[in-house]
Amino acid sequence: MNLNVLFKITYGLYVVGSNNGSKVNGFISNTVFQVTSEPPQFAVASHKNNYTTEIIREGKVFAISILRQDYHPDIIGTFGYRSGEEIEKFGNFKYMTGKTGAPILLTDTIGWLECEVINSFDLGTHILFIGNVVDGDIIDDSAEPLTYNYYHDVKKGKAPKNSPTYIDPQRLKAFPPKTS
Amino acid sequence: MNLNVLFKITYGLYVVGSNNGSKVNGFISNTVFQVTSEPPQFAVASHKNNYTTEIIREGKVFAISILRQDYHPDIIGTFGYRSGEEIEKFGNFKYMTGKTGAPILLTDTIGWLECEVINSFDLGTHILFIGNVVDGDIIDDSAEPLTYNYYHDVKKGKAPKNSPTYIDPQRLKAFPPKTS
Repeated sequence: MNLNVLFKITYGLYVVGSNNGSKVNGFISNTVFQVTSEPPQFAVASHKNNYTTEIIREGKVFAISILRQDYHPDIIGTFGYRSGEEIEKFGNFKYMTGKTGAPILLTDTIGWLECEVINSFDLGTHILFIGNVVDGDIIDDSAEPLTYNYYHDVKKGKAPKNSPTYIDPQRLKAFPPKTS
Repeated sequence: MNLNVLFKITYGLYVVGSNNGSKVNGFISNTVFQVTSEPPQFAVASHKNNYTTEIIREGKVFAISILRQDYHPDIIGTFGYRSGEEIEKFGNFKYMTGKTGAPILLTDTIGWLECEVINSFDLGTHILFIGNVVDGDIIDDSAEPLTYNYYHDVKKGKAPKNSPTYIDPQRLKAFPPKTS
């Protein structure tokens, strides 16, 4: 098996935020996808060790903030590599509180969605939360959304270890590039 | 709520194929996501009315074929808009049978993954299948993967009605473009 193929799967990059009534927090996720059309439902995978996972479980809401391609690196640094147990992540940026109470990042965000959790599934290391979309809007129609592929290939960014798409670099060395 | 924001979520486009021992079939999906890293597991959402859904339920395997950006339109036409009850979809293209028995499209594919289904969740209109990755490879490292955004914005393609990201065009009219 050639694990490099995992980099050919396309993802965006988002800040997923939640609020349990006493704490607001968020993390960087690429595993954000619409799973049904009627009604619109989204799935988000979150590592059981993520501080935000417990907040989503308790608050039963989450907001998805869609990052722009020309994001400021502090966004990834703060939401992807720091813990909400140590810092108030949203405190460093512009954000607003949605109708569900979930925090919506406004800095470097092109649009957002808010969801109410209606189900959650245990996938082993991660929980898959399923949410009904209750609100959403576009902030900037002219900007490109950041993709995981751009972050990986152009910005040379890595997935944090808690990401569903983290790959141990030691396992990637054996396969030279291919062309058909 | 401005449903246009749903187009800002990033997806790839894939042929998801399966085999129940008597029938091989596949459909176009953009809802293909890695959901855990250890072990690598993928989630695929499939409409209950899709012929392939029943085949995945019975065969408990699926293969993900990653389409290239410069795909031939017949691929989308066949896998996205025809039913496997009427035609042998894979019969029109080059494909191979993976170690699980699932069909892997080779025409216009840059890489593929094969999964064994270990769980499935009912999301209403769709089933979310969770599979352990058992094999995968890159076919062409030099080609770009097709994204749903490219298909929608450049090729002016639409989501079929059974897609998790289908949006009734009547519901999109009220919102003019925005810039920040």
